[in-house]
Formats: sequence, C-alpha cells, structure tokens
Amino acid sequence: MKLNRKPEREVNDRVELNRLLDEQLSGVLAAVADGRPAQIPIAYVRDGDRLLLHGSTGAGTLRSAAAGVPVSFCVQQIDALRLGYNGLHHSMNYRSAIIEGVAQRLDGDEHWAALEKFVDLMIPGRSTEIAPMTSKDAAKTMTLALPIIAGQWLLKVRGGELARSTEAPAEVWQGIVPLTVSAGAAVPASGQDAELAVPDSVRRFIASRRPAKDKESNDDGMA
Amino acid sequence: MKLNRKPEREVNDRVELNRLLDEQLSGVLAAVADGRPAQIPIAYVRDGDRLLLHGSTGAGTLRSAAAGVPVSFCVQQIDALRLGYNGLHHSMNYRSAIIEGVAQRLDGDEHWAALEKFVDLMIPGRSTEIAPMTSKDAAKTMTLALPIIAGQWLLKVRGGELARSTEAPAEVWQGIVPLTVSAGAAVPASGQDAELAVPDSVRRFIASRRPAKDKESNDDGMA
Repeated sequence: MKLNRKPEREVNDRVELNRLLDEQLSGVLAAVADGRPAQIPIAYVRDGDRLLLHGSTGAGTLRSAAAGVPVSFCVQQIDALRLGYNGLHHSMNYRSAIIEGVAQRLDGDEHWAALEKFVDLMIPGRSTEIAPMTSKDAAKTMTLALPIIAGQWLLKVRGGELARSTEAPAEVWQGIVPLTVSAGAAVPASGQDAELAVPDSVRRFIASRRPAKDKESNDDGMA
Repeated sequence: MKLNRKPEREVNDRVELNRLLDEQLSGVLAAVADGRPAQIPIAYVRDGDRLLLHGSTGAGTLRSAAAGVPVSFCVQQIDALRLGYNGLHHSMNYRSAIIEGVAQRLDGDEHWAALEKFVDLMIPGRSTEIAPMTSKDAAKTMTLALPIIAGQWLLKVRGGELARSTEAPAEVWQGIVPLTVSAGAAVPASGQDAELAVPDSVRRFIASRRPAKDKESNDDGMA
C-alpha cells in the first residue's frame, strides 16, 4: 500500500498507529464479494501486532474474511473542524488508519484465548469482575486475527491549529472547532441491586474519556 | 443488499437513516481495485436523496468511484458500551448505515453547486459568513454524488438500556456506558483579530453538540 497524495500527512510511526487503534472501539471491515465491495462496521481490539475481530458465525463479510479473502480495515477519528475563509478552505483534523491483509480465523484454544482477551483489551481489568464465558457462548462467536504488517498499513494524521490566511477578508472568522468522544455516567442494568457499585474497570474507562474541562463552561462557543 | 442476520436490528426507516447521515461528518468509501478492497475515510454531506463527497482530484479510490465502479459507503456511530455478566455478553449500542451503488462525478455547474452546498449542509449558514470560492480552488477538487436508492441501503440500530440477566452472579455489575461526540469551544485562527466574534453558524454547530449535562458532574462514573 502506498499513499499517493499529500505525503506530508503520512506519519510513518507505529506508536501513533497503536495509539489510534487502542483508542478507537470499532472500524469498517471491507472485502470483495461477487466483484463488488462489501463493508461491515465491527468492533475490534489491538493485540500486539494484530487486530482481533469477533462476531456472529452468520455474518457474511466476516465469513468471507475467515475464508481468507483479502480484506481492508479502516479506523478513523475526526478531531476538529477546520473553518477557513471560503468553502473550499474548510477541512478537518483527523486520524485514520487502513490495515490491509488476510485475516486468519482462530480455532480451539486460540479462539478461546482471543475471546478472553477481547474484553480486557477494550476495558482493561473487566475480566476480573465478571463471570467466566461458557462454551455455548464461544461456539456462537467467530474470532479473526488480522496481522499488522509493515508496508500493509497506512496512517494519516492531520492536526494542529489554523493560521489565518492572508487572503481572508478582514471580517471573516477562521478557526477550529474541536470534537471529542466522551463517556457519560454509567447506567446500571434495570433490575439490578442499586447497592452494586460501578466496578473499577468501568470507572477507569469513563475517567479516560471525560469531556475536557475547557469544554464545559461555554455555551456560546467562545474560546 | 439484504441483512442476513438479526433482522430485528434492521430499522427500515428512511427518517432514521437521514438522521444518522445528517449527524455524522465522515464515512468510509470502499471500491474494488485490482481484485482487492480499497477504502478511504472521507467527509460527506447528505443532499436529499444523495450523498455528496469531495476530495482531491489525485485521490485514488475517489478517482475509481468517479470512473463508475461499484462502491460501498459506511457510516457508523457507537452510542454506548453494553457491559454484561461475562465477556461474551459485552456489546455496543450503535447506529450504522451502508449505502451501495455507483457514484456520479459532477461537472461544470453541478460541481460548483455541490461545492457551494457542501459547507452549508455540514455547518448550516456558514456560506453567508465567508468569502466566495475561486475557480482555482474548485478545479483542484472533485465532487461525486452517490444516490440513496431503495434496496441499496442498510441501516442497523441497536439502542436502549440493559436488563439484568437472570444468569448473572449476584456480585457482577452490569450496565451501559454512554458515549457522545461533543464539540469544544471554538479556537480562533492564529494571527486573527481577537475582536472578531465566533459567527452564528459556528455557535449553533457547537451548541448542537455540547456534552450532556448529566455527564459533567461525576468524576467516578456513578449514575
């Protein structure tokens, strides 16, 4: 895979790739089916040098991927709108990753191990607070590993502030509007003992995705 | 296109599709290139019964799409984590859309009109606050329209709260963690007159994506 435009946006940095992959919760898996592109939005986690995917054994695109057809996996995050002085100078700060390759279906012990890892890679520590999986549950679920291989992934990052254009009319406001994904307060399951405390893993997950303080005080969007 | 699993999650409601498409800012465009899936994350807006895409005339997947190959476009939003009593009973509330079809490259007046619409469909009213586009800018940009055609789109919605499982051990906490995309305070361009006020369109955009009040008061994730 190569980036055939705007090479300054290609950040060839595996650390940054890992950071994006670890922060996001889902991506889009694509394969070719009957000569056409087929996509499925799907949760994933990163386990070292591979992505783990799981889903129903009945899911079409996941089954194709399990059969060894070439796949593409895309993850993206929009971090800000960049509002310039005319319509064509509007864009976004973003981070995106594409990982191409062939996924491998995991069986037996590997399947079980991947399922056990999945919840902890998404919500660290959660596995210690819950009941064990059952074989019946595991049989209904398929796990796949998509390796992250040098030369087969692409990271694009555009960030930073906006510098006022010298071509902008004096009266035109230019600037950035940051966008953040934040977690709200946990909502206990209905029918649950109200005394049961929100466990540590869930508190930590929420704390790691709180709205920034500077976003809480302004109703009018002024900096 | 058909949904071959969990038909109860297919919400055949164009109103809901429009709501999701209008709320999101970007999606993933997929096409087939050399027999393999190729994806590109890309900004879009909905203009009635079509999606408008724009990008550099040098972008490979966009050029393929402009040439009339079948494409798939995927938009998704994760609204909550659903945390059940064991690892396999963890999932997400989400909304996702897939739109398949053939895009049409827009030329001449249609290209210009699409570019003019783009900024207002994303940030309503913004076009009245900025300078006009130039032909030079427009020439560097390609616009495509992907029609939304009955039978060629798929919306999946999973929402709602979590009911406590009767199989859950008494000590296991189950519940939901909501996730929201919110806009922060606008950051004016560097070098800009500090007296220049954040314009109405930007204030409205930010106000429509403020963190919910119930997410601001709890540091520990307690409901």
